[in-house]
Amino acid sequence: MEAGTKIHPGTTALLATFGYAKVKVSKRPIVGILSTGTELLDVGDELTPGKIRNSNGPMVEAQLKRMGMMYQSYGMLEDNLESCQHMVEKALAETDLLITTGGVSVGDYDYLPVIYERLGATVLFNKIAMRPGSVTTVSVLNGKLLFGLSGNPSACFTGFELYVRPAIEKMMGSLAPYLPQIEAELDEAIPDANPFIRFMRGLWTFGADGVTARPAGFNKTNAVSSIARGNCIIVLPPGEHGYERGAKVKLLLLGSEQGVSTWNI
Amino acid sequence: MEAGTKIHPGTTALLATFGYAKVKVSKRPIVGILSTGTELLDVGDELTPGKIRNSNGPMVEAQLKRMGMMYQSYGMLEDNLESCQHMVEKALAETDLLITTGGVSVGDYDYLPVIYERLGATVLFNKIAMRPGSVTTVSVLNGKLLFGLSGNPSACFTGFELYVRPAIEKMMGSLAPYLPQIEAELDEAIPDANPFIRFMRGLWTFGADGVTARPAGFNKTNAVSSIARGNCIIVLPPGEHGYERGAKVKLLLLGSEQGVSTWNI
Repeated sequence: MEAGTKIHPGTTALLATFGYAKVKVSKRPIVGILSTGTELLDVGDELTPGKIRNSNGPMVEAQLKRMGMMYQSYGMLEDNLESCQHMVEKALAETDLLITTGGVSVGDYDYLPVIYERLGATVLFNKIAMRPGSVTTVSVLNGKLLFGLSGNPSACFTGFELYVRPAIEKMMGSLAPYLPQIEAELDEAIPDANPFIRFMRGLWTFGADGVTARPAGFNKTNAVSSIARGNCIIVLPPGEHGYERGAKVKLLLLGSEQGVSTWNI
Repeated sequence: MEAGTKIHPGTTALLATFGYAKVKVSKRPIVGILSTGTELLDVGDELTPGKIRNSNGPMVEAQLKRMGMMYQSYGMLEDNLESCQHMVEKALAETDLLITTGGVSVGDYDYLPVIYERLGATVLFNKIAMRPGSVTTVSVLNGKLLFGLSGNPSACFTGFELYVRPAIEKMMGSLAPYLPQIEAELDEAIPDANPFIRFMRGLWTFGADGVTARPAGFNKTNAVSSIARGNCIIVLPPGEHGYERGAKVKLLLLGSEQGVSTWNI
């Protein structure tokens, strides 16, 4: 077995056959999660005017769980610079990689940039030419990666799958750090054009026409309901035209454990 | 959200947004695993003449883990009818579904058929027209399903994914109990014909030619090494001829969490 291979049921059988009850593996990084935004309530809270519940924290936890990762949640940042800095320092000391959600859009009221500057973090990149997720910001401090994901659920989700996932996989030495890709035909037109590459939550199925895919729903950045229905990300290269029904597109597959409803040979 | 939907990161976000910190879910069945075969050693044991290590027990545990299932392993059956029957009764009392591996081929020295007859289990089906896994036997006792999987690793693996997996998913009310399917072109000929449908461990990749697949290796039923390399099951309908390179075949996808090594748009 090659280094960087994941241990799955087949490799477990192979190891058992040859008497390897224990093998050396890569350490799984411990990931910290911090949600920012003074508009955020906890999941159990009643809604009040101008507030929304924190869905990105639980979503990122579930994205990490799906990868088999360990994480430590540091809740939501308080509205006080000193206590915020203390929490970020604590998170950095206890984890191998830090994910923050929110506070990266222009005009956000947020302490993170100030704290990172105080601590001496270096911004590696931000303002990515993609939709959603353009505000994804990745920094580094003492060799630790800090992923600043958007506060918008779809952008946060996409930022995780496209940037955080492969980084974590690489930290474990994975030979296959990216989401699996296949090709599909759109079974619904996407008429609007976009000068940026788009990653749209989609639903793929396999039938008599092969693999077809359609957008999972209302595709605004903040449409959390489309994430719930999707089982893939449809990749739409930039251009001056939209996409017709039947157009060939690439899909990034999410969680094959979801299965399909019918069995056909 | 429809009943029978799996809770994944996207649905977690949706539930959090609308304030559902707790939701009612289906009970996960507890699965029992029993390995049979007087030739079996534990993984940590030294090999001795005529013996092999038990790889099916750990493999089935890993297949259940990949599905997020809870299981109870009852080790390997002893060479004594009364203690075997006691162990089977204990397993049946403590679990919702029982998987046994081995002891279903003609000529196997095994107490399971005797015990099942004593307990009054009804055989639902066996001797399936497929390769591998033809000896898969499914019985029922007091409403509990008993899956008798082959002692051959590949047949055991295939029997689990094709029969046990959808049964467990259905017990939880899943709307999508089967493995996802896609179509691929063979990038290697499979010259031998077979009058039975075959399920061959394969490796699929996506490149300039779309999705292509090839057998994972030496494809004898007992070739545990091919399971370790595969990321899909290639479905080969029965016929009087083999398959040429470029032939279209269907794939059942295993564990998309394995990812791919390159990112291409």
